[in-house]
Amino acid sequence: MNTEQFVTTSVTPLDNLDTLSPFEVAKLHDASQGGLYKLFRQCSLAVLNCGSELDSTKMVLEKYRDFDIKISQKHRGVQLDLINAPASAFVDGQIITGIREHLFSVLRDLLYVGDELDKCCAGLDESATTSNMVFHILRHAETIRPHVKPNLVVCWGGHSISRHEYEYTKKVGYELGLRGMDICTGCGPGAMKGPMKGATIAHAKQRIDDGRYVGISEPGIIAAESPNPIVNDLIIMPDIEKRLEAFVRLGHGIIVFPGGAGTAEEILYILGLLLHERNRNIPFPLIFTGPAGSEEYFATVDQFICHTLGEEARQCYEIIVDDAHEVAQRMREGLGSVTQYRKATSESFHFNWQLHIPQEFQEPFEPTHENMSQLQLHKELTSFELAANLRCALSGIVAGNVKEPGIRAIEQHGPFEIEGEPEMMAELDQLLTSFVDQRRMKLNYKEYTPCYRIKQAEANEEVSGA
Amino acid sequence: MNTEQFVTTSVTPLDNLDTLSPFEVAKLHDASQGGLYKLFRQCSLAVLNCGSELDSTKMVLEKYRDFDIKISQKHRGVQLDLINAPASAFVDGQIITGIREHLFSVLRDLLYVGDELDKCCAGLDESATTSNMVFHILRHAETIRPHVKPNLVVCWGGHSISRHEYEYTKKVGYELGLRGMDICTGCGPGAMKGPMKGATIAHAKQRIDDGRYVGISEPGIIAAESPNPIVNDLIIMPDIEKRLEAFVRLGHGIIVFPGGAGTAEEILYILGLLLHERNRNIPFPLIFTGPAGSEEYFATVDQFICHTLGEEARQCYEIIVDDAHEVAQRMREGLGSVTQYRKATSESFHFNWQLHIPQEFQEPFEPTHENMSQLQLHKELTSFELAANLRCALSGIVAGNVKEPGIRAIEQHGPFEIEGEPEMMAELDQLLTSFVDQRRMKLNYKEYTPCYRIKQAEANEEVSGA
Amino acid sequence: MNTEQFVTTSVTPLDNLDTLSPFEVAKLHDASQGGLYKLFRQCSLAVLNCGSELDSTKMVLEKYRDFDIKISQKHRGVQLDLINAPASAFVDGQIITGIREHLFSVLRDLLYVGDELDKCCAGLDESATTSNMVFHILRHAETIRPHVKPNLVVCWGGHSISRHEYEYTKKVGYELGLRGMDICTGCGPGAMKGPMKGATIAHAKQRIDDGRYVGISEPGIIAAESPNPIVNDLIIMPDIEKRLEAFVRLGHGIIVFPGGAGTAEEILYILGLLLHERNRNIPFPLIFTGPAGSEEYFATVDQFICHTLGEEARQCYEIIVDDAHEVAQRMREGLGSVTQYRKATSESFHFNWQLHIPQEFQEPFEPTHENMSQLQLHKELTSFELAANLRCALSGIVAGNVKEPGIRAIEQHGPFEIEGEPEMMAELDQLLTSFVDQRRMKLNYKEYTPCYRIKQAEANEEVSGA
Amino acid sequence: MNTEQFVTTSVTPLDNLDTLSPFEVAKLHDASQGGLYKLFRQCSLAVLNCGSELDSTKMVLEKYRDFDIKISQKHRGVQLDLINAPASAFVDGQIITGIREHLFSVLRDLLYVGDELDKCCAGLDESATTSNMVFHILRHAETIRPHVKPNLVVCWGGHSISRHEYEYTKKVGYELGLRGMDICTGCGPGAMKGPMKGATIAHAKQRIDDGRYVGISEPGIIAAESPNPIVNDLIIMPDIEKRLEAFVRLGHGIIVFPGGAGTAEEILYILGLLLHERNRNIPFPLIFTGPAGSEEYFATVDQFICHTLGEEARQCYEIIVDDAHEVAQRMREGLGSVTQYRKATSESFHFNWQLHIPQEFQEPFEPTHENMSQLQLHKELTSFELAANLRCALSGIVAGNVKEPGIRAIEQHGPFEIEGEPEMMAELDQLLTSFVDQRRMKLNYKEYTPCYRIKQAEANEEVSGA
Repeated sequence: MNTEQFVTTSVTPLDNLDTLSPFEVAKLHDASQGGLYKLFRQCSLAVLNCGSELDSTKMVLEKYRDFDIKISQKHRGVQLDLINAPASAFVDGQIITGIREHLFSVLRDLLYVGDELDKCCAGLDESATTSNMVFHILRHAETIRPHVKPNLVVCWGGHSISRHEYEYTKKVGYELGLRGMDICTGCGPGAMKGPMKGATIAHAKQRIDDGRYVGISEPGIIAAESPNPIVNDLIIMPDIEKRLEAFVRLGHGIIVFPGGAGTAEEILYILGLLLHERNRNIPFPLIFTGPAGSEEYFATVDQFICHTLGEEARQCYEIIVDDAHEVAQRMREGLGSVTQYRKATSESFHFNWQLHIPQEFQEPFEPTHENMSQLQLHKELTSFELAANLRCALSGIVAGNVKEPGIRAIEQHGPFEIEGEPEMMAELDQLLTSFVDQRRMKLNYKEYTPCYRIKQAEANEEVSGA
Repeated sequence: MNTEQFVTTSVTPLDNLDTLSPFEVAKLHDASQGGLYKLFRQCSLAVLNCGSELDSTKMVLEKYRDFDIKISQKHRGVQLDLINAPASAFVDGQIITGIREHLFSVLRDLLYVGDELDKCCAGLDESATTSNMVFHILRHAETIRPHVKPNLVVCWGGHSISRHEYEYTKKVGYELGLRGMDICTGCGPGAMKGPMKGATIAHAKQRIDDGRYVGISEPGIIAAESPNPIVNDLIIMPDIEKRLEAFVRLGHGIIVFPGGAGTAEEILYILGLLLHERNRNIPFPLIFTGPAGSEEYFATVDQFICHTLGEEARQCYEIIVDDAHEVAQRMREGLGSVTQYRKATSESFHFNWQLHIPQEFQEPFEPTHENMSQLQLHKELTSFELAANLRCALSGIVAGNVKEPGIRAIEQHGPFEIEGEPEMMAELDQLLTSFVDQRRMKLNYKEYTPCYRIKQAEANEEVSGA
Repeated sequence: MNTEQFVTTSVTPLDNLDTLSPFEVAKLHDASQGGLYKLFRQCSLAVLNCGSELDSTKMVLEKYRDFDIKISQKHRGVQLDLINAPASAFVDGQIITGIREHLFSVLRDLLYVGDELDKCCAGLDESATTSNMVFHILRHAETIRPHVKPNLVVCWGGHSISRHEYEYTKKVGYELGLRGMDICTGCGPGAMKGPMKGATIAHAKQRIDDGRYVGISEPGIIAAESPNPIVNDLIIMPDIEKRLEAFVRLGHGIIVFPGGAGTAEEILYILGLLLHERNRNIPFPLIFTGPAGSEEYFATVDQFICHTLGEEARQCYEIIVDDAHEVAQRMREGLGSVTQYRKATSESFHFNWQLHIPQEFQEPFEPTHENMSQLQLHKELTSFELAANLRCALSGIVAGNVKEPGIRAIEQHGPFEIEGEPEMMAELDQLLTSFVDQRRMKLNYKEYTPCYRIKQAEANEEVSGA
Repeated sequence: MNTEQFVTTSVTPLDNLDTLSPFEVAKLHDASQGGLYKLFRQCSLAVLNCGSELDSTKMVLEKYRDFDIKISQKHRGVQLDLINAPASAFVDGQIITGIREHLFSVLRDLLYVGDELDKCCAGLDESATTSNMVFHILRHAETIRPHVKPNLVVCWGGHSISRHEYEYTKKVGYELGLRGMDICTGCGPGAMKGPMKGATIAHAKQRIDDGRYVGISEPGIIAAESPNPIVNDLIIMPDIEKRLEAFVRLGHGIIVFPGGAGTAEEILYILGLLLHERNRNIPFPLIFTGPAGSEEYFATVDQFICHTLGEEARQCYEIIVDDAHEVAQRMREGLGSVTQYRKATSESFHFNWQLHIPQEFQEPFEPTHENMSQLQLHKELTSFELAANLRCALSGIVAGNVKEPGIRAIEQHGPFEIEGEPEMMAELDQLLTSFVDQRRMKLNYKEYTPCYRIKQAEANEEVSGA
């Protein structure tokens, strides 16, 4: 058994990422405000830490506080010097090639975002600028490939699901892979890893040697969700909103596995988009699925959607229980429609420009007491607006329950006040309670105290959360 | 769920196997004595049946009695027409590419062995002729590749092992794959499939896109042990002896997982070779391994070897329990010695010509009463001869226990009579009994009646098997 | 300037030709009757001598009488040891890669023909056996490739043409290459090299990186016509008849440039085939072309054909003067017909099985006095038979004029006696005279004494050659 | 013969250049001041016009005034619509693939330079900014490749040289190619094309299928020097100075063939750099060569250099007459020194960062009367400064002789006044006269009137040019 914990070594890049200018090298070493060193070190550490069990950014950073990374220029290109790196990234002292690749993906994206991107879109409005930035980052990372067929399936779901659910995500990935589909996830463990493993075996059987396992991450989350080395196309988007936009513009369909509140947020994000009137005609296969025994998660979510966004929202997705084969066949059919539609409308296969993403979905929502109290949550809104606002409410409540800044804010100022229709609030409450019951949130159900109070909008009557 | 059972379709080859002459096509269609049709149909069916649970040749042939295969010549090359083929070989009506490849491997090897091989070695003695045939078949199949490094690990073991043991074979394959090693097996399920799956995932992480998964089969066994579609180098050797020779000449090291009596036979085959005086200096890493809980299998085998072939034989192998990491590291070290030795002696990396395989090991042993009674089983023999004879005895006893012709022979003529040293016979008996106890043989332990009687050699005293 | 004349060095193969068995190595070293050493040494020397000006086999062999070649087995495969090899094959001491490839093509074909081929076609008649051998040799050399389109243009013509004609062959090759066509020649200088050079430049412009430059040679001629290193697919057929068969079965169309009597023989060969009743419907583009100033060659040939084989034979070809562009366009159209026909008749694209080649064209004609006197040369013959016989007559006369055994036979026994229709004989005489006039034969026109006498068949009247 | 002159068609890109954003497409269509349409149309036309004999930008633009180019977005990527394009770019209606590639190289570089480059180097001084821009453009064009060996030979020389000289450039290219060297030129005809053709044939013989034929152009000159379709790496630098910088940073050695005054300017550029004290130790092979009969060109240049820059400058280069073999061997040795030096100093193989290029050499020199009169031309200058100033003087005189704005300026204001040491001026005069004599400038020698007057610096005595 290998018991070593830290490795100090040098690695050279695999391909054309070794052609840095001395100026770029200097920027990556620059630990000052404008420099990239801090970000570079943090993301590199995350990538190297992939085999680890730690899923808390804080714990990772602490354990590897002596980790350092430097770049040196050699006649054949650059070289990365790693000091006290996590041993799990190495096999008999040699870095795992996939992880080596990831190190250079990090370097590539940080430099590009920092350097060249700023002025790429002079003259466009803010929303278009964001979309163009997403496009440019993906294209620069060679993730946007010509001549692809619409076959990239985004898989969402929890990163700490049960063994049983994990095995099911592998089966689904296997069936997708047998049908030539590629996988895109947020690149952590659980539902983000299983489909890739399944697809890898299926691609081997189908002799698909250019199978794509796209991982889209961002600096804020990468340490907690280290990319699996199977990921052969790793992109570090600058923030969570651009990451979500990358998913929906790059992917041709989405499969959602069981998860927690984060997964529910993602569901509301995609539903919000699909319910927008400008997106009504755009085919976008969306399947919720889990193994036998996990039906409850989607039953709860489905009921919540039905009672808040209405029957119309339900038309956007399909729920399939415990049938990986069926999931793959339905996805294949869905991709067929995507293909036809894009041909008919001359939309590119590699980037979904047509999908309208309103600025509300491109900007971060900060869950302060003020922002929470001003959320509009009633049925007069368009379903798109309501989905957007519910997503924010959910995000805030999750923050108030489990995220440190949120918890502190609640301690100081009391529960968030949310003004909304009572039925809607009751549904929200029920949804979250159910997640706690299903052990899908890191909460002690017994002691759970709601972090919000609901002000009934019209009657001005206050109702506290369940 | 797909419930279809039979598929009728046409498939075209992937590569240069579609350049058959009309004369060759005729031969494959020829159902007469000299023709290849029967063999071709049977092996093709085996290859197509890979997803099935059936592991009895007879049941396979019965279930698919309406299966047929034909070849037609098109302007772009040949095409195979499949009639009533097993549906498990198809995904949504499309044949799995790996299986398609296997169909054409079958065709390639049957034609080559039938056609071109006969005269390849005029002027050589019989043993050299056999070795040359093995070489020619493998080279023609492009399995002998230039510029390989010694990294091909043969994995032996049972095809119906427990889930727990199966998972362990995957782990070992994963650790081998992480270290860049390739896998060669007899290409059925169980210990023949697990290491390939593990290595596939590891190769993906290491970005090894030319990983080799060599499967060596033969017409007599292929229906019962359908090649896994991961196998990307399938060879159909003409018989079991050439298949064994292919393993030891092509592979650079061997790992044995738990199995049954067949696995024990393979162990005696390789030990016999390694104990031959002409092979004493040739490094050949040989590791017996299984997960915690499976120690007994190798304990039994180890004891049997020690008590029959002696301490010297024990030096040829190493037993590692429940440590996939250690197995891979030790194998890597072993391959290092192989590399050094071949360099020092100018032996090719791709084929172990130096290994002496005496004619006894190239010829089939037929377990008749007469052959069994004439086996020499005593300690005056060289350890090589004794290993060879013990292998035959084992083979005969297995046949008498479980194979139809053997059972019938016992019914007609009574138990085999074996003349050997009593201690040796007792050891043999104990070994088989232990396999039955461990449920590694398809026998009802309770009702087990020995199929042999032992005549004590010197004292002329008869002892019936335990 | 490099003035070295001989190089002694070792070369390793580029690809999978380095996997020889010790038995094969022994055969290549075997200088006895049954061994391959002599042939192997001679062909290797020819291949190494490619840059030289010598075009006489005898002179080549004399100059390099100290040349030797040996094979040694290394752990990475075989290695060729060259002793006193022609320096022109090397650049700064390194062998030109194309030539290295050719050395191993020689080795491959000699071993295959010697070893494995004999029994490939048991049960077929003699003519079918020959065709199958041609197919097997080409397939083994990987010259028969699946998925090709009919685009392989055979170029015939003289190897010692004028600079002006040579430049024209380059232009034609360039225009063919621009249209994606590949080139196949007999692999010497002149008209065999020019088209390949032109096509290489065109393929570079069209980014065709798998352009094929097929050279088909045979041991008897290779020393006089060393393969150009551009040839990336060299095959050594066992004799001239199989070489001709390889041209017409592998190639999809033929362009003939000006040459000498040898070129005229080739023209009669292909015309004979195309005039056979079983080949009447098979499209086979055949173009005679030369630059302005070389019209006379084809005018003479055309007249000869018209007056002997008749107008019908003229329908088989097209003469284009000084228009490389037109040649390429017409050939492309012709290949279009070939493509359609093969699709319609399910004939393979890679080998023209349908073309009937009668045994007369597969067997060598030996120009003895007896054979010459028994040739049938009159208009009662089918045009196929007449073409075959005229080819033999031409071959014999050329031999009597310029080949050593022929000249000696004439010296001993007087001129060949040919019995044929007087007009036909006159035409033949005129054809040869014209070649001498055009300096296309190595003869002193002034002193030319005909090596044949013509016996007028019916009238029994003797007419001496012009 | 193809007599068509204009072709209207659509072409799709070969690779990943088809992933444009709608915003980028709009910019390429934008004919307003800030838009790229005009430049895009002009460069595309130049690229399409490659087969033409016209070498005047004006004539090209006039002949193809109806040419237009548009981009349309399709589901598989972008498509270029060409209207009234030069027929010489097409073969039977299909665009030559190399030219298709060039069209998309143009598009790539124009967008990149326009869009993304601006801010790439914030914080650097002006000279470093320029060098970084050169690096970024080349890297973005994938011209900077990792893992290259120093083997890229820049070839300079005239684009309208004699047939004899052209054949010699082919020979040199052939010998370079045989030794595995790649070619980089300014991508027009003559000395820019010959070496590539020669190398193409040699690379085919050496089975080098990734041979590089780099062409570096710029919008101002591309119409007059259309890239040869053999160029497989075309870069459009924004101006002539960056183009020159690209040559010397990317190339590992330079060969200069005979040319005109432009070639002499390039010689002074590289000599100026090599004479700079910071570059003294950097090995940079520089060879002047031409066939027998062209000795005079380099004799004149050599004498001029010797008499102005001195013996020291002569150490920077070597003159080889009529020996392609020797040229290639000397270059190979030179590249050996480059390799060693870069290893020793950890300088990258792919970009010569160490070479110091002073700002004087990065900024354009505008040949006005004022600028000309202020040139410092005396021996007190460092040799670097003198070379820089002589280059400017030469540039101005050429402009005054043959370029339209220069001629007009001379007509209006009389000859340029140059103040310099008389011997130096005499040398300059002699150099230019010799070029006229050798027919290397587009001037009528008979009527040649010097466009400059020389003011003797110290003695204040005026001397008119020769």
